[in-house]
Amino acid sequence: MADHVYRVVELVGSSETGLEDAINSAIDKAAKTVRHMRWFQVVETRGHIENNKVAHYQVTLKVGFSVEDENVSLAP
Amino acid sequence: MADHVYRVVELVGSSETGLEDAINSAIDKAAKTVRHMRWFQVVETRGHIENNKVAHYQVTLKVGFSVEDENVSLAP
Amino acid sequence: MADHVYRVVELVGSSETGLEDAINSAIDKAAKTVRHMRWFQVVETRGHIENNKVAHYQVTLKVGFSVEDENVSLAP
Amino acid sequence: MADHVYRVVELVGSSETGLEDAINSAIDKAAKTVRHMRWFQVVETRGHIENNKVAHYQVTLKVGFSVEDENVSLAP
Amino acid sequence: MADHVYRVVELVGSSETGLEDAINSAIDKAAKTVRHMRWFQVVETRGHIENNKVAHYQVTLKVGFSVEDENVSLAP
Amino acid sequence: MADHVYRVVELVGSSETGLEDAINSAIDKAAKTVRHMRWFQVVETRGHIENNKVAHYQVTLKVGFSVEDENVSLAP
Amino acid sequence: MADHVYRVVELVGSSETGLEDAINSAIDKAAKTVRHMRWFQVVETRGHIENNKVAHYQVTLKVGFSVEDENVSLAP
Amino acid sequence: MADHVYRVVELVGSSETGLEDAINSAIDKAAKTVRHMRWFQVVETRGHIENNKVAHYQVTLKVGFSVEDENVSLAP
Amino acid sequence: MADHVYRVVELVGSSETGLEDAINSAIDKAAKTVRHMRWFQVVETRGHIENNKVAHYQVTLKVGFSVEDENVSLAP
Amino acid sequence: MADHVYRVVELVGSSETGLEDAINSAIDKAAKTVRHMRWFQVVETRGHIENNKVAHYQVTLKVGFSVEDENVSLAP
Amino acid sequence: MADHVYRVVELVGSSETGLEDAINSAIDKAAKTVRHMRWFQVVETRGHIENNKVAHYQVTLKVGFSVEDENVSLAP
Amino acid sequence: MADHVYRVVELVGSSETGLEDAINSAIDKAAKTVRHMRWFQVVETRGHIENNKVAHYQVTLKVGFSVEDENVSLAP
Repeated sequence: MADHVYRVVELVGSSETGLEDAINSAIDKAAKTVRHMRWFQVVETRGHIENNKVAHYQVTLKVGFSVEDENVSLAP
Repeated sequence: MADHVYRVVELVGSSETGLEDAINSAIDKAAKTVRHMRWFQVVETRGHIENNKVAHYQVTLKVGFSVEDENVSLAP
Repeated sequence: MADHVYRVVELVGSSETGLEDAINSAIDKAAKTVRHMRWFQVVETRGHIENNKVAHYQVTLKVGFSVEDENVSLAP
Repeated sequence: MADHVYRVVELVGSSETGLEDAINSAIDKAAKTVRHMRWFQVVETRGHIENNKVAHYQVTLKVGFSVEDENVSLAP
Repeated sequence: MADHVYRVVELVGSSETGLEDAINSAIDKAAKTVRHMRWFQVVETRGHIENNKVAHYQVTLKVGFSVEDENVSLAP
Repeated sequence: MADHVYRVVELVGSSETGLEDAINSAIDKAAKTVRHMRWFQVVETRGHIENNKVAHYQVTLKVGFSVEDENVSLAP
Repeated sequence: MADHVYRVVELVGSSETGLEDAINSAIDKAAKTVRHMRWFQVVETRGHIENNKVAHYQVTLKVGFSVEDENVSLAP
Repeated sequence: MADHVYRVVELVGSSETGLEDAINSAIDKAAKTVRHMRWFQVVETRGHIENNKVAHYQVTLKVGFSVEDENVSLAP
Repeated sequence: MADHVYRVVELVGSSETGLEDAINSAIDKAAKTVRHMRWFQVVETRGHIENNKVAHYQVTLKVGFSVEDENVSLAP
Repeated sequence: MADHVYRVVELVGSSETGLEDAINSAIDKAAKTVRHMRWFQVVETRGHIENNKVAHYQVTLKVGFSVEDENVSLAP
Repeated sequence: MADHVYRVVELVGSSETGLEDAINSAIDKAAKTVRHMRWFQVVETRGHIENNKVAHYQVTLKVGFSVEDENVSLAP
Repeated sequence: MADHVYRVVELVGSSETGLEDAINSAIDKAAKTVRHMRWFQVVETRGHIENNKVAHYQVTLKVGFSVEDENVSLAP
């Protein structure tokens, strides 16, 4: 079995409704251009306040995905 | 444009129902005496357990608010 | 009043539905063999991604429980 | 039961005699103007040295207190 | 000599010109309502970007000040 | 010489009198069921406040002990 | 309003003259290929020393930018 | 699919020869009494020095294992 | 001399044999699409356990590379 | 007024009796060869356990001292 | 090529004018007794406040220098 | 038994071959001028990359040694 290599990118998702939706908004957006996502880790949870209410939650994620596929470029 | 100054206070909100409600309980309470809240950051998530169940979630927040207004005192 | 002693164990709960359910899954499992649980602290929030969606949330907890009872062994 | 909200303030106590006295000096001072203190957490332990001896210990605390009482202002 | 007690507050200063000016903007604002400031510690350095340029620097400070004076309230 | 293996457990001791007594209360309790303790590390120092005084100090320790002895189980 | 998603990249800028110039060198370089930059956070400040003088300052930044635009790829 | 729960224990392995052997010594010892180990994380790397040489490497690990099996006790 | 700018990416390499091989597997993979790599920093060391043995080591790296070359895009 | 420069060294003091004595043992030893010590900061608190009792407390300190005096060498 | 060894010392520089000057004050002082300095890392930024103004900035640095030269002693 | 005092110095060892060799290179160098070394702790693992390969591993260590001997100076 070949040794696996993963790349980790940092994303910030946001949602007006809750923490899980903020996580999902980031992963949904990433899914449009990244394949083979495997895991995420929450690194920060913040939010904006407007008119004394939470306007939206912001969750910063690290997302790991496989770069096994030779056709996927690691170049930034 | 004048340079902005913010103050950051640390609050602990709690809720029997979930993490977002614990966040909101702290912000609702703060809204009674603080104006111009702009953002929050979660710094710790804990909870109490009673009878083998989560009795309430406790979320510690840092809350930032503008002190542009000259009439707002920074004195503790 | 006698001085209290607590033990802290680290658990990872998971859920397909959300963060609170992942927390509760760990505490429900612990309740089968540990008595006198008092508090938890979230130390990490992660998750697995399958087919571009969150497959399950994973929350790592520290759970504290009282070891006042002489009959409870601290031995690992 | 209503959901609880706490505020956390950061204080530095000092003492010529020891760590516990430094902790108590901060809490005694706070007691003159803050009610409903519930817990503290030590966040840093330092001290000054004069003539090759510890001149005083300095302990930085976070102190949490209940803001349930509507008459207590959260304004800074 | 009586034992000293200090309070530490967290502020965010900003400036369009540089890091030192951001620090000074926070201290200048605090000086309008807080006496006896003694030290600061930088806890975070951030900034906003507009049109591909730094629009302003934001420096988060902890500022310590003496509460020796009995007339100064620690109440938030 | 065989290679050594240690296990590390996390305990919280408490005391009404001071930090060293809180440390000792945890180790005394552990001594009833764990053999071969070798070291401890303080990971957090907290306390409860009642009536404006420290009601008890709470010190969280990691305690390491040898598991050389084949008869000691590592199972949780 | 659609929920926003941001990507965060890590850059190291350097300058012979000072910290702000090092920050700006990284943002200027990024501006050639990244649009919609919104904020930065300093995560490390280092430098090289040659002939007993600072040869250049090196500031490591996290830079956040919006990926709202469907035409921008998140692929690494 | 039922939600999974894992327990995490902290171990210190040691070896006279290298870091991988120290990791393996801890896992080999744990294997005598723990089933279903799934992952480890290195949390500290230390060692003892005798006669100006490394006498042995010590690697502190967190080891996660599944507690799906109802017959495995979580009690400490 | 022009001021240098570097980009830092996060990668996870794995190996069945040891820590150095896990580091090299990540750098070998990156070399297929990234030029001008200059340094790496280990940010986490983990591994998977199967049948009571280390199945593979996983080392998370930050890798820095020069973006001096105008033709290299910083776009993610 | 000339700008001040301090050097910071790391020491571990130990004591059979308590934390303050461990701090003082390190400072007393340092006083034999270092002049102009100004402050200390506790960076770790550990101890050894023998026969189920604390054998000695070990406190790791950073100690800062002035190097204003031209005759004091900074060379290690 | 022989393998290189570096020593890292911790210094605090101060300046009435700014952060870069505080960094340079520490390196200038070190240059009087240390040769072969290669890099520095900022580990803390603080300052003293007098009369509501920054009296001086204090920057704590780690400074690395080569100890290749056999004639340079590592003894403290 | 007299109370022990240790000093901790920070070193960076390097090696073209692996992590253990980098650790040993630092300890070998230190052994030429420091006596009574007792332990080390790895605080950072980095490396340089040249031509898409690891050119050398760099391991930053804290090394503790006894200063019991009155003839050993703590002066920097």
